[in-house]
Amino acid sequence: MAELDGPESDLWADIAHESSRRLLLAALESFAAHGYNATTTRRIGERAGMSPAAVYMHYPSKQALLFEISRTGHEAVLRDVQNAIDGIASPKDRLWTFMHVFVSWHARNHTVARVNQYELASIPPEHFGEIRDLRDRFEAALMAELRAGVESGDFVVADMDVTLLALLSLGIDVARWYTGRGKSPDELGRAYAHLALTLVSAERE
Amino acid sequence: MAELDGPESDLWADIAHESSRRLLLAALESFAAHGYNATTTRRIGERAGMSPAAVYMHYPSKQALLFEISRTGHEAVLRDVQNAIDGIASPKDRLWTFMHVFVSWHARNHTVARVNQYELASIPPEHFGEIRDLRDRFEAALMAELRAGVESGDFVVADMDVTLLALLSLGIDVARWYTGRGKSPDELGRAYAHLALTLVSAERE
Repeated sequence: MAELDGPESDLWADIAHESSRRLLLAALESFAAHGYNATTTRRIGERAGMSPAAVYMHYPSKQALLFEISRTGHEAVLRDVQNAIDGIASPKDRLWTFMHVFVSWHARNHTVARVNQYELASIPPEHFGEIRDLRDRFEAALMAELRAGVESGDFVVADMDVTLLALLSLGIDVARWYTGRGKSPDELGRAYAHLALTLVSAERE
Repeated sequence: MAELDGPESDLWADIAHESSRRLLLAALESFAAHGYNATTTRRIGERAGMSPAAVYMHYPSKQALLFEISRTGHEAVLRDVQNAIDGIASPKDRLWTFMHVFVSWHARNHTVARVNQYELASIPPEHFGEIRDLRDRFEAALMAELRAGVESGDFVVADMDVTLLALLSLGIDVARWYTGRGKSPDELGRAYAHLALTLVSAERE
Protein backbone atom coordinates (compact mmCIF):
# COMPACT_ATOMS: atom_id res chain seq x y z
CA MET A 1 0.00 0.00 0.00
CA ALA A 2 0.85 3.73 0.05
CA GLU A 3 2.66 3.93 -3.25
CA LEU A 4 2.47 7.63 -3.95
CA ASP A 5 -0.02 8.34 -6.69
CA GLY A 6 0.70 12.04 -7.03
CA PRO A 7 3.56 14.20 -8.27
CA GLU A 8 4.86 14.63 -4.73
CA SER A 9 8.38 13.47 -5.55
CA ASP A 10 8.64 16.67 -7.66
CA LEU A 11 9.17 18.44 -4.35
CA TRP A 12 12.68 17.02 -4.35
CA ALA A 13 13.46 17.52 -8.04
CA ASP A 14 16.32 19.87 -7.20
CA ILE A 15 18.05 17.46 -4.83
CA ALA A 16 21.09 16.43 -6.83
CA HIS A 17 21.57 12.97 -5.35
CA GLU A 18 19.29 10.28 -6.80
CA SER A 19 19.77 8.12 -3.67
CA SER A 20 18.73 11.00 -1.41
CA ARG A 21 15.56 11.52 -3.44
CA ARG A 22 14.77 7.80 -3.32
CA LEU A 23 15.24 7.77 0.45
CA LEU A 24 12.97 10.78 1.00
CA LEU A 25 10.26 9.11 -1.09
CA ALA A 26 10.68 5.79 0.73
CA ALA A 27 10.53 7.58 4.10
CA LEU A 28 7.43 9.52 3.08
CA GLU A 29 5.65 6.35 1.94
CA SER A 30 6.59 4.53 5.14
CA PHE A 31 5.55 7.37 7.46
CA ALA A 32 2.24 7.70 5.58
CA ALA A 33 1.54 3.95 5.70
CA HIS A 34 2.65 3.08 9.24
CA GLY A 35 3.13 6.39 11.05
CA TYR A 36 6.50 7.87 11.97
CA ASN A 37 6.86 6.06 15.29
CA ALA A 38 6.27 2.59 13.84
CA THR A 39 8.72 3.10 10.95
CA THR A 40 12.35 1.94 11.23
CA THR A 41 15.34 3.23 9.29
CA ARG A 42 15.91 -0.37 8.17
CA ARG A 43 12.41 -0.49 6.63
CA ILE A 44 12.97 2.81 4.82
CA GLY A 45 16.25 1.47 3.43
CA GLU A 46 14.56 -1.73 2.23
CA ARG A 47 11.85 0.24 0.46
CA ALA A 48 14.54 2.35 -1.23
CA GLY A 49 16.58 -0.76 -2.08
CA MET A 50 19.48 0.30 0.15
CA SER A 51 21.37 -1.17 3.11
CA PRO A 52 21.13 0.55 6.53
CA ALA A 53 24.78 1.63 6.15
CA ALA A 54 24.00 3.24 2.79
CA VAL A 55 21.01 5.06 4.33
CA TYR A 56 23.23 6.56 7.06
CA MET A 57 25.62 7.93 4.42
CA HIS A 58 22.81 10.24 3.28
CA TYR A 59 20.73 10.86 6.41
CA PRO A 60 22.10 10.30 9.92
CA SER A 61 18.69 9.30 11.36
CA LYS A 62 15.00 8.76 10.78
CA GLN A 63 14.50 12.19 12.39
CA ALA A 64 16.74 13.79 9.74
CA LEU A 65 14.53 12.32 7.00
CA LEU A 66 11.37 13.58 8.71
CA PHE A 67 12.88 17.04 9.12
CA GLU A 68 13.92 17.19 5.45
CA ILE A 69 10.41 16.13 4.28
CA SER A 70 8.78 18.66 6.60
CA ARG A 71 11.16 21.53 5.76
CA THR A 72 10.85 21.10 1.98
CA GLY A 73 7.06 20.71 2.20
CA HIS A 74 6.57 23.82 4.34
CA GLU A 75 8.92 25.83 2.10
CA ALA A 76 7.14 24.68 -1.07
CA VAL A 77 3.62 25.73 -0.11
CA LEU A 78 4.81 29.11 1.20
CA ARG A 79 6.83 29.77 -1.98
CA ASP A 80 4.00 28.63 -4.30
CA VAL A 81 1.47 30.91 -2.60
CA GLN A 82 3.82 33.90 -2.60
CA ASN A 83 4.72 33.44 -6.27
CA ALA A 84 1.03 33.19 -7.19
CA ILE A 85 -0.12 36.38 -5.44
CA ASP A 86 2.95 38.42 -6.42
CA GLY A 87 1.89 41.38 -8.55
CA ILE A 88 -1.88 41.01 -7.96
CA ALA A 89 -3.35 44.30 -6.69
CA SER A 90 -6.97 43.57 -5.71
CA PRO A 91 -7.38 42.20 -2.15
CA LYS A 92 -10.22 39.95 -3.37
CA ASP A 93 -8.14 38.46 -6.18
CA ARG A 94 -5.17 38.04 -3.84
CA LEU A 95 -7.19 36.14 -1.21
CA TRP A 96 -8.88 34.05 -3.93
CA THR A 97 -5.49 33.14 -5.42
CA PHE A 98 -3.89 32.50 -2.00
CA MET A 99 -6.64 30.05 -1.04
CA HIS A 100 -6.72 28.44 -4.49
CA VAL A 101 -2.99 27.62 -4.34
CA PHE A 102 -3.06 26.70 -0.62
CA VAL A 103 -5.99 24.28 -1.00
CA SER A 104 -4.93 22.72 -4.29
CA TRP A 105 -1.38 22.23 -2.92
CA HIS A 106 -2.76 20.31 0.07
CA ALA A 107 -4.91 18.16 -2.23
CA ARG A 108 -2.10 17.51 -4.74
CA ASN A 109 0.52 16.85 -2.05
CA HIS A 110 -1.76 15.27 0.53
CA THR A 111 0.74 12.63 1.63
CA VAL A 112 3.49 15.18 2.35
CA ALA A 113 0.93 17.50 3.90
CA ARG A 114 -0.28 14.77 6.27
CA VAL A 115 3.27 14.18 7.48
CA ASN A 116 3.70 17.97 7.82
CA GLN A 117 0.62 18.28 10.00
CA TYR A 118 0.50 15.09 12.01
CA GLU A 119 4.17 14.33 12.72
CA LEU A 120 5.13 17.78 13.99
CA ALA A 121 5.64 16.39 17.49
CA SER A 122 8.40 14.10 16.17
CA ILE A 123 10.52 16.88 14.64
CA PRO A 124 13.80 17.01 16.62
CA PRO A 125 13.64 19.93 19.09
CA GLU A 126 16.83 21.51 17.68
CA HIS A 127 15.14 21.79 14.26
CA PHE A 128 11.61 22.60 15.36
CA GLY A 129 12.29 26.35 15.37
CA GLU A 130 12.94 26.30 11.64
CA ILE A 131 9.57 24.60 10.95
CA ARG A 132 7.79 26.87 13.44
CA ASP A 133 9.28 29.86 11.61
CA LEU A 134 7.99 28.64 8.22
CA ARG A 135 4.51 28.09 9.71
CA ASP A 136 4.56 31.54 11.34
CA ARG A 137 5.50 33.12 8.02
CA PHE A 138 2.63 31.34 6.26
CA GLU A 139 0.12 32.48 8.90
CA ALA A 140 1.47 36.05 8.80
CA ALA A 141 1.15 36.09 5.00
CA LEU A 142 -2.50 35.05 5.19
CA MET A 143 -3.21 37.54 8.01
CA ALA A 144 -1.66 40.31 5.88
CA GLU A 145 -4.18 39.51 3.11
CA LEU A 146 -7.07 39.67 5.58
CA ARG A 147 -5.87 43.01 6.99
CA ALA A 148 -5.40 44.53 3.53
CA GLY A 149 -8.93 43.55 2.52
CA VAL A 150 -10.46 44.94 5.70
CA GLU A 151 -8.51 48.20 5.33
CA SER A 152 -9.59 48.62 1.71
CA GLY A 153 -13.21 47.96 2.69
CA ASP A 154 -13.39 44.82 0.53
CA PHE A 155 -13.75 42.39 3.45
CA VAL A 156 -16.01 42.37 6.49
CA VAL A 157 -14.43 40.36 9.34
CA ALA A 158 -15.91 40.13 12.83
CA ASP A 159 -12.89 38.42 14.46
CA MET A 160 -9.55 38.47 12.62
CA ASP A 161 -7.90 35.69 14.66
CA VAL A 162 -10.84 33.30 14.33
CA THR A 163 -11.19 34.00 10.61
CA LEU A 164 -7.46 33.33 10.14
CA LEU A 165 -7.80 30.03 12.03
CA ALA A 166 -10.80 29.05 9.93
CA LEU A 167 -9.04 29.78 6.63
CA LEU A 168 -5.98 27.81 7.78
CA SER A 169 -8.20 24.89 8.79
CA LEU A 170 -9.95 24.87 5.41
CA GLY A 171 -6.61 24.39 3.64
CA ILE A 172 -4.83 22.12 6.10
CA ASP A 173 -7.75 19.75 6.71
CA VAL A 174 -7.91 18.92 2.99
CA ALA A 175 -4.82 16.75 3.57
CA ARG A 176 -6.78 14.65 6.09
CA TRP A 177 -9.70 13.68 3.85
CA TYR A 178 -8.55 14.17 0.24
CA THR A 179 -8.08 10.90 -1.64
CA GLY A 180 -7.77 12.01 -5.25
CA ARG A 181 -11.32 10.88 -6.08
CA GLY A 182 -14.00 13.42 -6.90
CA LYS A 183 -12.86 16.99 -7.57
CA SER A 184 -9.35 17.57 -8.93
CA PRO A 185 -6.96 19.67 -6.78
CA ASP A 186 -7.59 22.63 -9.08
CA GLU A 187 -11.41 22.31 -8.92
CA LEU A 188 -11.32 21.94 -5.14
CA GLY A 189 -9.02 24.97 -4.89
CA ARG A 190 -11.47 27.07 -6.92
CA ALA A 191 -14.49 26.00 -4.87
CA TYR A 192 -12.69 26.72 -1.58
CA ALA A 193 -11.34 30.07 -2.85
CA HIS A 194 -14.96 31.06 -3.53
CA LEU A 195 -15.94 29.96 0.01
CA ALA A 196 -13.03 31.93 1.48
CA LEU A 197 -14.35 35.13 -0.12
CA THR A 198 -17.84 34.34 1.17
CA LEU A 199 -16.33 33.95 4.65
CA VAL A 200 -15.11 37.56 4.50
CA SER A 201 -18.42 38.69 2.93
CA ALA A 202 -16.82 39.38 -0.45
CA GLU A 203 -17.37 38.20 -4.00
CA ARG A 204 -14.89 37.99 -6.84
CA GLU A 205 -15.67 40.40 -9.67
CA MET B 1 3.19 14.10 29.51
CA ALA B 2 -0.32 13.86 28.13
CA GLU B 3 -2.20 13.74 31.39
CA LEU B 4 -5.68 14.67 30.29
CA ASP B 5 -6.50 18.19 31.37
CA GLY B 6 -10.12 18.17 30.28
CA PRO B 7 -13.32 16.49 31.34
CA GLU B 8 -12.91 13.82 28.67
CA SER B 9 -13.18 10.91 31.08
CA ASP B 10 -16.83 12.01 31.51
CA LEU B 11 -17.43 10.28 28.18
CA TRP B 12 -17.23 7.00 30.04
CA ALA B 13 -19.18 8.00 33.13
CA ASP B 14 -21.84 5.38 32.40
CA ILE B 15 -19.37 2.49 32.12
CA ALA B 16 -20.05 0.56 35.29
CA HIS B 17 -16.63 -0.96 35.77
CA GLU B 18 -14.07 1.36 37.36
CA SER B 19 -11.21 -0.72 35.88
CA SER B 20 -12.64 -0.43 32.37
CA ARG B 21 -12.88 3.34 32.72
CA ARG B 22 -9.31 3.52 34.01
CA LEU B 23 -8.09 1.44 31.05
CA LEU B 24 -9.88 3.60 28.48
CA LEU B 25 -8.34 6.70 30.00
CA ALA B 26 -4.86 5.10 30.11
CA ALA B 27 -5.23 3.96 26.49
CA LEU B 28 -6.39 7.42 25.38
CA GLU B 29 -3.45 9.10 27.11
CA SER B 30 -0.98 6.61 25.61
CA PHE B 31 -2.38 6.88 22.06
CA ALA B 32 -2.33 10.69 22.31
CA ALA B 33 1.24 10.77 23.64
CA HIS B 34 2.91 8.11 21.48
CA GLY B 35 0.48 7.30 18.68
CA TYR B 36 -1.52 4.11 18.44
CA ASN B 37 1.13 2.07 16.63
CA ALA B 38 3.88 2.79 19.16
CA THR B 39 1.68 1.96 22.18
CA THR B 40 1.71 -1.51 23.72
CA THR B 41 -1.01 -3.14 25.79
CA ARG B 42 1.60 -3.59 28.51
CA ARG B 43 2.24 0.16 28.63
CA ILE B 44 -1.49 0.88 28.84
CA GLY B 45 -1.76 -1.58 31.72
CA GLU B 46 1.16 0.03 33.55
CA ARG B 47 -0.38 3.47 33.20
CA ALA B 48 -3.65 2.11 34.60
CA GLY B 49 -1.81 0.28 37.39
CA MET B 50 -2.87 -3.15 36.09
CA SER B 51 -1.10 -6.33 34.95
CA PRO B 52 -1.34 -7.40 31.28
CA ALA B 53 -3.54 -10.33 32.41
CA ALA B 54 -5.91 -7.94 34.17
CA VAL B 55 -6.08 -5.76 31.05
CA TYR B 56 -7.13 -8.74 28.93
CA MET B 57 -9.98 -9.50 31.32
CA HIS B 58 -11.59 -6.21 30.25
CA TYR B 59 -10.40 -5.69 26.68
CA PRO B 60 -9.07 -8.51 24.49
CA SER B 61 -6.66 -6.27 22.57
CA LYS B 62 -5.29 -2.78 22.00
CA GLN B 63 -7.62 -2.63 18.98
CA ALA B 64 -10.63 -3.25 21.23
CA LEU B 65 -9.63 -0.27 23.38
CA LEU B 66 -9.20 1.94 20.31
CA PHE B 67 -12.58 0.87 18.96
CA GLU B 68 -14.32 1.60 22.29
CA ILE B 69 -12.73 5.09 22.51
CA SER B 70 -13.67 5.81 18.89
CA ARG B 71 -17.22 4.46 19.16
CA THR B 72 -18.08 6.34 22.36
CA GLY B 73 -16.50 9.55 21.00
CA HIS B 74 -18.37 9.44 17.71
CA GLU B 75 -21.65 8.60 19.49
CA ALA B 76 -21.20 11.43 21.99
CA VAL B 77 -20.72 14.27 19.51
CA LEU B 78 -23.63 13.06 17.35
CA ARG B 79 -25.93 12.77 20.38
CA ASP B 80 -24.88 16.16 21.81
CA VAL B 81 -25.55 17.93 18.50
CA GLN B 82 -28.91 16.22 18.00
CA ASN B 83 -30.05 17.00 21.55
CA ALA B 84 -29.05 20.64 21.13
CA ILE B 85 -30.93 21.29 17.87
CA ASP B 86 -33.99 19.26 18.84
CA GLY B 87 -37.06 21.52 18.91
CA ILE B 88 -35.39 24.56 17.27
CA ALA B 89 -37.42 25.71 14.25
CA SER B 90 -35.34 28.39 12.50
CA PRO B 91 -32.75 27.01 10.04
CA LYS B 92 -30.32 29.77 11.03
CA ASP B 93 -30.61 29.00 14.74
CA ARG B 94 -30.33 25.27 14.04
CA LEU B 95 -27.10 25.65 12.01
CA TRP B 96 -25.70 28.10 14.57
CA THR B 97 -26.43 25.64 17.40
CA PHE B 98 -25.16 22.62 15.44
CA MET B 99 -21.80 24.33 14.76
CA HIS B 100 -21.56 25.72 18.30
CA VAL B 101 -21.91 22.26 19.83
CA PHE B 102 -19.77 20.55 17.14
CA VAL B 103 -16.85 23.00 17.51
CA SER B 104 -16.95 23.32 21.29
CA TRP B 105 -17.12 19.51 21.61
CA HIS B 106 -13.94 19.16 19.52
CA ALA B 107 -12.18 21.81 21.62
CA ARG B 108 -13.32 20.37 24.96
CA ASN B 109 -12.59 16.76 23.94
CA HIS B 110 -9.61 17.43 21.72
CA THR B 111 -7.65 14.39 22.87
CA VAL B 112 -10.48 11.96 22.10
CA ALA B 113 -11.22 13.84 18.90
CA ARG B 114 -7.60 13.51 17.72
CA VAL B 115 -7.73 9.75 18.24
CA ASN B 116 -11.11 9.71 16.43
CA GLN B 117 -9.68 11.51 13.40
CA TYR B 118 -6.10 10.31 13.11
CA GLU B 119 -6.29 6.65 14.15
CA LEU B 120 -9.22 5.67 11.91
CA ALA B 121 -6.91 3.49 9.81
CA SER B 122 -6.17 1.33 12.87
CA ILE B 123 -9.80 0.48 13.65
CA PRO B 124 -10.22 -3.28 13.10
CA PRO B 125 -11.91 -3.87 9.71
CA GLU B 126 -14.76 -5.88 11.29
CA HIS B 127 -15.68 -2.81 13.40
CA PHE B 128 -14.95 -0.08 10.90
CA GLY B 129 -18.47 -0.19 9.47
CA GLU B 130 -19.95 0.87 12.80
CA ILE B 131 -17.65 3.94 12.97
CA ARG B 132 -18.27 4.70 9.28
CA ASP B 133 -21.99 4.58 9.97
CA LEU B 134 -21.72 7.07 12.85
CA ARG B 135 -19.65 9.41 10.66
CA ASP B 136 -22.16 9.09 7.81
CA ARG B 137 -25.02 9.93 10.17
CA PHE B 138 -23.18 13.03 11.40
CA GLU B 139 -22.52 14.22 7.84
CA ALA B 140 -26.11 13.53 6.82
CA ALA B 141 -27.41 15.49 9.82
CA LEU B 142 -25.32 18.52 8.85
CA MET B 143 -26.31 18.21 5.17
CA ALA B 144 -30.00 18.13 6.24
CA GLU B 145 -29.50 21.48 8.00
CA LEU B 146 -27.90 22.98 4.87
CA ARG B 147 -30.73 21.71 2.67
CA ALA B 148 -33.44 23.01 4.99
CA GLY B 149 -31.86 26.48 5.04
CA VAL B 150 -31.53 26.59 1.25
CA GLU B 151 -35.13 25.43 0.79
CA SER B 152 -36.45 28.04 3.23
CA GLY B 153 -34.44 30.74 1.45
CA ASP B 154 -32.35 31.47 4.55
CA PHE B 155 -29.06 30.19 3.10
CA VAL B 156 -27.29 30.83 -0.20
CA VAL B 157 -24.99 27.93 -1.10
CA ALA B 158 -23.09 27.66 -4.40
CA ASP B 159 -21.93 24.05 -3.93
CA MET B 160 -23.63 21.90 -1.26
CA ASP B 161 -20.92 19.19 -1.14
CA VAL B 162 -18.04 21.63 -0.83
CA THR B 163 -19.86 23.68 1.80
CA LEU B 164 -20.55 20.50 3.80
CA LEU B 165 -16.86 19.55 3.60
CA ALA B 166 -15.82 23.02 4.71
CA LEU B 167 -18.16 23.01 7.71
CA LEU B 168 -16.94 19.54 8.71
CA SER B 169 -13.32 20.70 8.40
CA LEU B 170 -13.96 23.75 10.57
CA GLY B 171 -15.16 21.53 13.42
CA ILE B 172 -12.82 18.57 13.02
CA ASP B 173 -9.63 20.57 12.55
CA VAL B 174 -10.14 22.25 15.93
CA ALA B 175 -8.93 18.99 17.48
CA ARG B 176 -5.59 19.35 15.66
CA TRP B 177 -4.66 22.80 16.92
CA TYR B 178 -6.69 23.45 20.09
CA THR B 179 -4.59 23.46 23.24
CA GLY B 180 -6.93 24.93 25.83
CA ARG B 181 -5.16 28.30 25.76
CA GLY B 182 -6.88 31.38 24.37
CA LYS B 183 -10.63 31.09 23.75
CA SER B 184 -12.67 28.66 25.85
CA PRO B 185 -14.49 25.85 23.99
CA ASP B 186 -17.74 27.80 24.35
CA GLU B 187 -16.25 31.07 23.03
CA LEU B 188 -14.64 29.28 20.10
CA GLY B 189 -17.92 27.50 19.35
CA ARG B 190 -19.77 30.84 19.24
CA ALA B 191 -17.19 32.47 16.96
CA TYR B 192 -17.23 29.51 14.56
CA ALA B 193 -21.04 29.30 14.59
CA HIS B 194 -21.06 32.94 13.45
CA LEU B 195 -18.56 32.09 10.68
CA ALA B 196 -20.68 29.12 9.60
CA LEU B 197 -23.68 31.38 9.06
CA THR B 198 -21.47 33.81 7.11
CA LEU B 199 -20.37 30.88 4.95
CA VAL B 200 -24.00 30.31 3.90
CA SER B 201 -24.53 34.08 3.53
CA ALA B 202 -26.82 34.26 6.55
CA GLU B 203 -26.86 36.18 9.82
CA ARG B 204 -28.39 35.19 13.12
CA GLU B 205 -31.30 37.45 14.10
